Amino acid sequence: MRAIVITKPGGPDVLAVVDRPTPEPARGEVRVRVRATAVNRADLLQRMGAYPAPAGEPVDIPGLEVAGEVDALGPDATRFAIGDRVMGLVGGGGYAEAIVSHERALARIPEGMTFEDAAAIPEAFVTAHDAMRQADVRGGETLLVHAVGSGVGTAACQLGRAFGLRVLGTARTPDKLARARDLGLDVGIVPDGGKFADLVKRTDPDGVHAILELVGGGYVDEDLRCVQLLGRIVLVGLMAGVRAELDLGLLLRRRARVFGTVLRARPLEEKIAAMRAFETSVVPLFARGLVRPVVDVVLPLAEAAQAHARMASNVGFGKIVLRT
Amino acid sequence: MRAIVITKPGGPDVLAVVDRPTPEPARGEVRVRVRATAVNRADLLQRMGAYPAPAGEPVDIPGLEVAGEVDALGPDATRFAIGDRVMGLVGGGGYAEAIVSHERALARIPEGMTFEDAAAIPEAFVTAHDAMRQADVRGGETLLVHAVGSGVGTAACQLGRAFGLRVLGTARTPDKLARARDLGLDVGIVPDGGKFADLVKRTDPDGVHAILELVGGGYVDEDLRCVQLLGRIVLVGLMAGVRAELDLGLLLRRRARVFGTVLRARPLEEKIAAMRAFETSVVPLFARGLVRPVVDVVLPLAEAAQAHARMASNVGFGKIVLRT
Repeated sequence: MRAIVITKPGGPDVLAVVDRPTPEPARGEVRVRVRATAVNRADLLQRMGAYPAPAGEPVDIPGLEVAGEVDALGPDATRFAIGDRVMGLVGGGGYAEAIVSHERALARIPEGMTFEDAAAIPEAFVTAHDAMRQADVRGGETLLVHAVGSGVGTAACQLGRAFGLRVLGTARTPDKLARARDLGLDVGIVPDGGKFADLVKRTDPDGVHAILELVGGGYVDEDLRCVQLLGRIVLVGLMAGVRAELDLGLLLRRRARVFGTVLRARPLEEKIAAMRAFETSVVPLFARGLVRPVVDVVLPLAEAAQAHARMASNVGFGKIVLRT
Repeated sequence: MRAIVITKPGGPDVLAVVDRPTPEPARGEVRVRVRATAVNRADLLQRMGAYPAPAGEPVDIPGLEVAGEVDALGPDATRFAIGDRVMGLVGGGGYAEAIVSHERALARIPEGMTFEDAAAIPEAFVTAHDAMRQADVRGGETLLVHAVGSGVGTAACQLGRAFGLRVLGTARTPDKLARARDLGLDVGIVPDGGKFADLVKRTDPDGVHAILELVGGGYVDEDLRCVQLLGRIVLVGLMAGVRAELDLGLLLRRRARVFGTVLRARPLEEKIAAMRAFETSVVPLFARGLVRPVVDVVLPLAEAAQAHARMASNVGFGKIVLRT
């Protein structure tokens, strides 16, 4: 099979197309003929040598999500038939023409949806949904979503609307906020020198009930300043920095809750549990037209380097998809 | 009634004995003839002007917990009879001969227990129990308790043992750790220049499941360094500082959870809920001899200033009780 590999740590130009042996599915696994994958910020970190693949995953093929058809069944794999259209998260190796996955870590692609659209779903929607479940947000509550133009941000916006939440969001440019309005964003905020708490309080004087933190760094202390009593902050990404000084007194008095979360490093049983919750609560929303994948651009797999450069530039809105 | 009031913000000498009108119980409330109260660090902060009483509570009489007899019933108060021996948390006003409380925010004093012992229970045991419930600790897990010689620390140690937890604890001096061993402490640690994570990992290489953080400041970053995957850190007190730089990357990768908590500022219904859980799960443990109040010293109410000076010196072990 063809695959994109990281030839050495570095910039986008270290990605190269190579031939690799097609993997064989083990017990309970299926092989997926990958038709599309998508780019995540973790792929860029992995390419730069800052985020090694978890044990048991391909060490040099990036890619955390796929859409395609089942083309081989391992022993005891019974959920799918050859030819079934599936999407899913993988611990690595998605930038390739084939991957193997435990059958319970895959979900069916909604009828009529293209592979390119389906590949834009798993990381964005499973991450957003899982984080919102951890934050235990309920209809009627207020959710602040940072980096609202990102894959996870656009998914959280739509899930917020679908679940009856009021959604506030931040982005670095007003045009991303304008586009997010079509996805359910109620209040858009451009942070001013990294500050947004006072801007949140203009519309929501008591603060918000929950926050999906996709930026990190100094944003987290601002989060504490605009989260309600018993508010929940879920740390999903830390692009802007991994160390920050926090006002713990505020965390205490607000009785706030801060949760760290990652998907990739979870053991199989937890990944399956996250996928099952996603299949139950999110997949039906696509068929009902309540949420949709947000695709920034579709590029051929061989142009993975351009895809990485585009993500690093932060100009996109939604997911960058690679067609294999 | 006699009461201790804060005459102005300042040192222990600003506390004075005065006469105040005896309060009358409103609907659902009872009046308690206070026989003993106990000192909390919050009382010292309030005395210094750094922690105003919540709305609706006496503004200048400190005191967050009492033990005594019911001596008057408000309209519709049906849980207790005149003369019943009760203990409870109050939002302020405990340093007095009488207080009023909602009847559902009080618990019966275990048979045969003195008022002095009972007064040492509510803040320590309700706070420790409530924090452990928030941390969702289960038998078999490992709990790290900071300031293990404090009221909350000694209570958490004993509850940990009673609930089947392995308990690690820190204190600034080895003698407090030695005394805490009798209360169920399994591993005692004297932090070295504020560092303890490496010392925890000597006995527990994977880290602990949950931490009761009673010190704050730089301790919280150390907590992150010795908490297991999915570990829970409950911020109960921040004596050592309210701002701290944290490694959010560690919080994310460990998928750790940090909860801030305070009892005093909670609305009535939440205080009642905490008391009901305490009455169900903790009060029976006293009769069974599995936990006991830990009294540092008993002083007359008029010597509240000495009591405050003793707490500030950090030399005590357990609760400082005031007999009214």
